[in-house]
Amino acid sequence: MSITRKRFLVGAGLVGGGIAVGGVRGLLAADEAGADDGTGHIAFHGTHQAGILTPQQDRLHFAAFDLTTSNVKEVRDLMRAWTEAAAAMTAGALVGSDTWQPTAPPDDTGEALGLLPNRLTITFGFGPSLFRADGEDRFGLARRMPPALKPLPDLPGDEIDRAISHGDLCVQACSDDPQAAFHAVRNLARIARGVAVLRWSQLGFGRTSSTSQNQQTPRNLMGFKDGTNNITAEESDAVHRKHVWADSGDGADWMHDGSYMVTRRIRMLIEVWDRASLADQEQTIGRLKASGAPIGGSGEHDDPDFKAKDDKGMPLIPDAAHVRIASPDNNRGIRMLRRGYSFTDGFDDQLGQLDAGLFFIAYQRNPHKQFVPVQRRLGANDQLNEYIVHRSSGLFAVPPGIPDRPGRFIGDSLLN
Amino acid sequence: MSITRKRFLVGAGLVGGGIAVGGVRGLLAADEAGADDGTGHIAFHGTHQAGILTPQQDRLHFAAFDLTTSNVKEVRDLMRAWTEAAAAMTAGALVGSDTWQPTAPPDDTGEALGLLPNRLTITFGFGPSLFRADGEDRFGLARRMPPALKPLPDLPGDEIDRAISHGDLCVQACSDDPQAAFHAVRNLARIARGVAVLRWSQLGFGRTSSTSQNQQTPRNLMGFKDGTNNITAEESDAVHRKHVWADSGDGADWMHDGSYMVTRRIRMLIEVWDRASLADQEQTIGRLKASGAPIGGSGEHDDPDFKAKDDKGMPLIPDAAHVRIASPDNNRGIRMLRRGYSFTDGFDDQLGQLDAGLFFIAYQRNPHKQFVPVQRRLGANDQLNEYIVHRSSGLFAVPPGIPDRPGRFIGDSLLN
Repeated sequence: MSITRKRFLVGAGLVGGGIAVGGVRGLLAADEAGADDGTGHIAFHGTHQAGILTPQQDRLHFAAFDLTTSNVKEVRDLMRAWTEAAAAMTAGALVGSDTWQPTAPPDDTGEALGLLPNRLTITFGFGPSLFRADGEDRFGLARRMPPALKPLPDLPGDEIDRAISHGDLCVQACSDDPQAAFHAVRNLARIARGVAVLRWSQLGFGRTSSTSQNQQTPRNLMGFKDGTNNITAEESDAVHRKHVWADSGDGADWMHDGSYMVTRRIRMLIEVWDRASLADQEQTIGRLKASGAPIGGSGEHDDPDFKAKDDKGMPLIPDAAHVRIASPDNNRGIRMLRRGYSFTDGFDDQLGQLDAGLFFIAYQRNPHKQFVPVQRRLGANDQLNEYIVHRSSGLFAVPPGIPDRPGRFIGDSLLN
Repeated sequence: MSITRKRFLVGAGLVGGGIAVGGVRGLLAADEAGADDGTGHIAFHGTHQAGILTPQQDRLHFAAFDLTTSNVKEVRDLMRAWTEAAAAMTAGALVGSDTWQPTAPPDDTGEALGLLPNRLTITFGFGPSLFRADGEDRFGLARRMPPALKPLPDLPGDEIDRAISHGDLCVQACSDDPQAAFHAVRNLARIARGVAVLRWSQLGFGRTSSTSQNQQTPRNLMGFKDGTNNITAEESDAVHRKHVWADSGDGADWMHDGSYMVTRRIRMLIEVWDRASLADQEQTIGRLKASGAPIGGSGEHDDPDFKAKDDKGMPLIPDAAHVRIASPDNNRGIRMLRRGYSFTDGFDDQLGQLDAGLFFIAYQRNPHKQFVPVQRRLGANDQLNEYIVHRSSGLFAVPPGIPDRPGRFIGDSLLN
């Protein structure tokens, strides 16, 4: 039996909806990675991996993997297979052969058949342990480890659970349809069988930041607008190069046009927060809950006035307020591209409370100069610490994008 | 500070999007429960609770609660407060007062501000343990326990974990926006503080059935179209009365126009399934994977021909195929209204596999005459049992809907 993409798309009635099969295939050779052609397909190939500056999608499935092989050739083959599958899935095509044989398992698990990718992006990263674990140079890659990928130090207030942290490889799948994101992680995990195993994963059900000025600022689970002053796609290339993209001069040629991703699973102590008064909540954040404006301002996008005083001469935005401590103004201009998601993992039967919070993802040129100093200040001084706890941590080098040419795969600048 | 709904809606730019405040308020007095006025608001009040025949939304947050009070008056007050909050949230309004005082926690936790309800429905149910637990008539309600609410028997193949099963009360929140559903469960849990605690909860990320003929049939995580022959809103009132709605003649007057909900968390052994050949998968289900047609048929909606034989005289649809064993034709016409969702709870570190599957929800007039006999046959004979395991079970009486009149609340026919 031959099952073509065309038959699937026709079968699902998508041609009637205006998505022609030619259009779907054409996308594989489309513009820059991250560009949206208007049909919900984000181009996979380009200078940078998609899923970083791409306008942030609504849903996340993140997964970290541990390699079970000790053969670098198998790592290379995995990245080659993952790249091929990711290019297909983000274009709305099937993983592997579109001719299914009755006697074999289908290459694609099938639950996304008939669904559009809904702006699916799949972004790959390499953890420090790919280069060196327990002092061992596992794959002969240790000398190519970027200085920026040095493991994160212990940070004030951290309560990190190693079982849901770190990993040799990571996959960030984002889409406006959670089934497209789930399908991506599941099929990549399946392809990895025998070479890598899932270490941990995290779903996010709603974005808590915007990476485009055309997106409304969302609210996090504290009920506050989050990510108001994020780095956006519309900012200049100079801004992106300064804060987001790694440069060959940074000590790892192969990471040129890549970026470094930090992940933190931040549990919110929701029941405690919900008992705090509105004034306490607003003074903790430094913003007004309803409008998102900084205290003393009137609009969400007003610059916080950190010098303003109340009639008793006290700072309007308290010294320990989150916006003050996190602000680039008070961190020597440090900025990061945030790509956070709200999560809930149901119910914590030890505490009898909703297990929910923020899965923080940030992209940056060098975490040791960006995430680490900011989080060190936040962890030590931020009033918000009364209501949150960091439970998972990850650091990954996200290699550059690749052109759509035979033989190219994500990570080839390192692994070839 | 006075924070009106109007200010929130204006602040979020929704007036420009065509949703006037008057329109939002007007909805509270709208038509039949479950009807959609075209702006994404589903009417809360009506003959039946919304969220049963309502065209199935894409996302689910389900929660079961245990009462910690022994005072029936507090149960009544809780249902009154829950009803008021649910009516507000489903209409896109704030929980509680829309005037926030700085010195008090806001009544509403705020994360849904600026979001439309996206067809949010909130459906309440009562478990058998509300009437009698460990032989005790906890609230003086035992004599009013409906015969249909008798606890489910042990069923073949069950591996039920009590910690994620049952409950005195349940809340089914469905919406096309997961943040609206999360917000609903969180705020109801907050309102319940001191009277009831969360027992377990379940997120669903994608629907696996349709309750309207205008909806495409979705695929479950086995990659197969699911719920093809479900009961839909478009069927006749006689069909609904026969299979879905309880009648005063059924032994519990107060349940007239209500329904009975069965929930089952069905873990799929995804890695095993993904190694099965296409032919094995199709013979297990009895349908073709690509088209959803029954084996031997050509279209998804073709009736399965259970008598058809192959050229060796064997049944085309095997004797143990899921469609054959579950079919109303082979179950004396038994039908249920299914409202299932795909779930994934990340990663099972005991098995090293994705923890994912189907959260089955079915509404029916009498579970002991509908769910139980069908599941008894399925649990004993269904080929699908090689690939699934039932891990959670719930049974709830879902009381009728209520008109939008002062003093009325969900469950008042029992509790008043």
